[in-house]
Amino acid sequence: MDVSRPPPNGRRCGLTLGTVLASGVAAGGNRQIITHGGMRFGYPELDQRVRRLGAVLCALGVSAGTRVAMLDRDTHRYLEAYFAVPMLGAVLMTANIRLSAQQLRYTLEHSGTRLVLAAAELVPLLKEAFAGAAVIPELLVMGEDGQYDALMESADASFEFPDVDEESVATHFYTTGTTGLPKGVTYTHRQLVEHTLAVGFALAAADDYQSLRQGDVYMPLTPMFHVHAWGMPYIATLLGLKQVYPGRYDALTLPGLIATERVTFSHCVPTVLQMVLDEAERQGQSLHGWKVMVGGSAMAPALARRAMKSGLQPFAGYGMSETCPVLCFARTNAQEASAYPERLCRVGHPVPLVQLQIEGEDRQPDATEGELVARASWLTQAYFDDPTGSGRLWEGGHLHTGDVATIDMDGAVRIVDRLKDVIKSGGEWVSSLDLEAKLREHPAVDEAAVIGIPDAKWGERPWAFVKLAAAAPLSAAEAEAALRELLQSHVAQGLLPRFAIPERIEFVDELPKTSVGKLDKKRLRLWTSEGDMT
Amino acid sequence: MDVSRPPPNGRRCGLTLGTVLASGVAAGGNRQIITHGGMRFGYPELDQRVRRLGAVLCALGVSAGTRVAMLDRDTHRYLEAYFAVPMLGAVLMTANIRLSAQQLRYTLEHSGTRLVLAAAELVPLLKEAFAGAAVIPELLVMGEDGQYDALMESADASFEFPDVDEESVATHFYTTGTTGLPKGVTYTHRQLVEHTLAVGFALAAADDYQSLRQGDVYMPLTPMFHVHAWGMPYIATLLGLKQVYPGRYDALTLPGLIATERVTFSHCVPTVLQMVLDEAERQGQSLHGWKVMVGGSAMAPALARRAMKSGLQPFAGYGMSETCPVLCFARTNAQEASAYPERLCRVGHPVPLVQLQIEGEDRQPDATEGELVARASWLTQAYFDDPTGSGRLWEGGHLHTGDVATIDMDGAVRIVDRLKDVIKSGGEWVSSLDLEAKLREHPAVDEAAVIGIPDAKWGERPWAFVKLAAAAPLSAAEAEAALRELLQSHVAQGLLPRFAIPERIEFVDELPKTSVGKLDKKRLRLWTSEGDMT
Repeated sequence: MDVSRPPPNGRRCGLTLGTVLASGVAAGGNRQIITHGGMRFGYPELDQRVRRLGAVLCALGVSAGTRVAMLDRDTHRYLEAYFAVPMLGAVLMTANIRLSAQQLRYTLEHSGTRLVLAAAELVPLLKEAFAGAAVIPELLVMGEDGQYDALMESADASFEFPDVDEESVATHFYTTGTTGLPKGVTYTHRQLVEHTLAVGFALAAADDYQSLRQGDVYMPLTPMFHVHAWGMPYIATLLGLKQVYPGRYDALTLPGLIATERVTFSHCVPTVLQMVLDEAERQGQSLHGWKVMVGGSAMAPALARRAMKSGLQPFAGYGMSETCPVLCFARTNAQEASAYPERLCRVGHPVPLVQLQIEGEDRQPDATEGELVARASWLTQAYFDDPTGSGRLWEGGHLHTGDVATIDMDGAVRIVDRLKDVIKSGGEWVSSLDLEAKLREHPAVDEAAVIGIPDAKWGERPWAFVKLAAAAPLSAAEAEAALRELLQSHVAQGLLPRFAIPERIEFVDELPKTSVGKLDKKRLRLWTSEGDMT
Repeated sequence: MDVSRPPPNGRRCGLTLGTVLASGVAAGGNRQIITHGGMRFGYPELDQRVRRLGAVLCALGVSAGTRVAMLDRDTHRYLEAYFAVPMLGAVLMTANIRLSAQQLRYTLEHSGTRLVLAAAELVPLLKEAFAGAAVIPELLVMGEDGQYDALMESADASFEFPDVDEESVATHFYTTGTTGLPKGVTYTHRQLVEHTLAVGFALAAADDYQSLRQGDVYMPLTPMFHVHAWGMPYIATLLGLKQVYPGRYDALTLPGLIATERVTFSHCVPTVLQMVLDEAERQGQSLHGWKVMVGGSAMAPALARRAMKSGLQPFAGYGMSETCPVLCFARTNAQEASAYPERLCRVGHPVPLVQLQIEGEDRQPDATEGELVARASWLTQAYFDDPTGSGRLWEGGHLHTGDVATIDMDGAVRIVDRLKDVIKSGGEWVSSLDLEAKLREHPAVDEAAVIGIPDAKWGERPWAFVKLAAAAPLSAAEAEAALRELLQSHVAQGLLPRFAIPERIEFVDELPKTSVGKLDKKRLRLWTSEGDMT
């Protein structure tokens, strides 16, 4: 009898999202779930609303395995769907509303979506996507004349969900790589619960500077369709925290919302952090004590310093769609952060039970610089219906992040570059991320992107693309001279190799971005090869 | 493709104790693991020592499923065995050194133990247990002339452990109920890791008053053979904390050890807390800032108040051998604790993913007072080789704790009594725990036990057994009068029903205790029925 048996008269209680919600309802009491400009209710009502949604979906024929897509901004409705759909044994397809209509249709069709819950304002996008299609998923409109509210109101608030196996798929979404079609990623109940426990534990056990604990107020600032808003709504719900959902991200109202609702913990990409900082400064609104995990792209030390000056507690986090997503985050305290702000920009130490290694070019582990590879029980085991992509992802038994990293003496991980963005000049590696961070140190620079351009002599040479700050009083020639001087001073201090100085520095009005707000270097490279840089 | 597939070229990474150790080694750096009066080393050496032990055991023929018993005090060696034995796929049998020689032999034989690692001082106990036996487990003596140290020294510090399935049994021990033979309880890797994550998360996310986080210093004060010291060494190791192992619990040295090593977090039964407080007071040693989870028996408010007066942060925890063990603990903060010390004595709110319910006499859930039942994925699924006991444990699909509880308005659980200790007088329930706590409020009382005695008229009547404090200047008659007056005042205030006043109050020199230091009411009842109370 070496393997534990199910109890003779009982049933094994698995790691399911239903148990996460039950714990949150037991812990949360009347702490509020809020949608900006919309509803506001406590955990007992969250429980009832999830049950109502379960009843509504059940009546619409949703059952085990059915794909139900959500097209919405960050709202309490999305949070309810995070639980209700998987608790039916169905699969929540978190559709990316920033994709083109064509890509959106591809992802809905590829996932086999049967029912779409769409906010009224997003219905036109859906209609465009399926214009002329023979088969269209069923649609339930939320808000403005939609049937959703009426159905919810008349639904059974004590609906009982079925028992769901912890290994059933709970969520399904698409990651838009820089090449090829979007790739489908799925997570089981068990994977989501393990991520919730491990990341929640790491954040709770960390220093006050970056902690998420009882008493915190949570608000996402990465979209809920993007890797379940980094899994944080599940952590916040498990702890029974007050949660604030901002709806559409509106720079004008965010600083006030954060202050009024006393938000203490968020996460976002650097661009959003910068946007909120700009607006808060303009409005004279304090954001003191706001802890922000920054990820998606590298946080430049200049941005970290500026945020700290405004009383924020920023710190880098790291992960990817295929890792659920959080693998690691910077661990520091207030004192260290103010003395060494660059440590906030390292992606830090792994969360419990995540193993990170650096793989050298020979695929040997424990190299000093090379591709970052990961293992943990909750990583994506395979892309949906894509054995070739899955094989590449897990080559050699580790998940390949596609990022080049080093590990510092204290064990903290530092991302050097995307594997495909790193520039090889004269046989030496140049980090585009590092160059971008150094360019952004100049006050006249708003954004910077560096790519490698084929070069007959050196293999590749770095080119920089810079968007100047709106208020910058410099001509392009003056700005270029100033930036070259700045980089030369880094070379003089031994902080940058001489061959890393960009071959060209171009000034642009906008840098191309992907649907999730990351720099789109693929399009930058296209610009340069096509000679079209306007 | 609804269920996630293993990666084409990878392997699913399970929830195993090996991943817990790897995370701890990555996080712990040179924080120390200390045995009082013995060794002291950092996490890299912990990793090497676990590998050495793995190599030693492997050479002794230990393989998947082999039962390896540990007979030791709380030492770094025990911590190493917590990892090395299960990481081989073998099963660590944590033998209870407080059992009688006969019971010890029963548990070693019943578990199928093949190899015993015994501290030199405990070898005589083992020899007594197996005197005259035909088959004796192999013995490896640790310390004083044992072969253990020599074997460890020459073993391979880079030994590679095999891959272990997360569903393999990792630990095996015995719980001595109040009736019948000791019952075998086992836990798989996965169950132990889930308990580690959930309980660790709950303690990390709790208020500073009872938190366990980065920066804390951990020392167990419940034996490591007792439900893996409540699973806390696994949590402390996962976080990479400094850990202090006290060896044999010696009241004289404990206060100094706590102060010198700056221990901030421990757990113990009320008796041990009282012992340490007595000695610290005698020595004038401060224990300020020491957080202590108190469980195993109910913590009386008087003890909580006294501990707080000495600068400690005591709080109740609750669980049992069959629940891995921690199910819930009191959540409070310093302000609330000093204003309402009785809230520290409630067993509080469940840890994440644990569901607790009160089952009425009709086995219906959500009664106001009744047996506490539990569900969570890491509870013991069945007793080892005991289908009848297992069936009773899980009757109706919930694990039965055997404790009567109520749930307060704020969701906190309050244990009323052991189901079998609750006294039914005139059809009404009297809580023996409540009476004991009230008796202990009198400064002359050191310990108190209350049991129900059969009564022709009332069914049962409460009898109290009191051990007076050594310094108490009262005669038995004076003490009885004082205690009756105290209880009458509770009756007058409406805090105690009149029929709860004990029929008799007996004064004794010692109260009988079980092997883990709990009041042994079974023996008390035997005393009363046999008329032998000396």
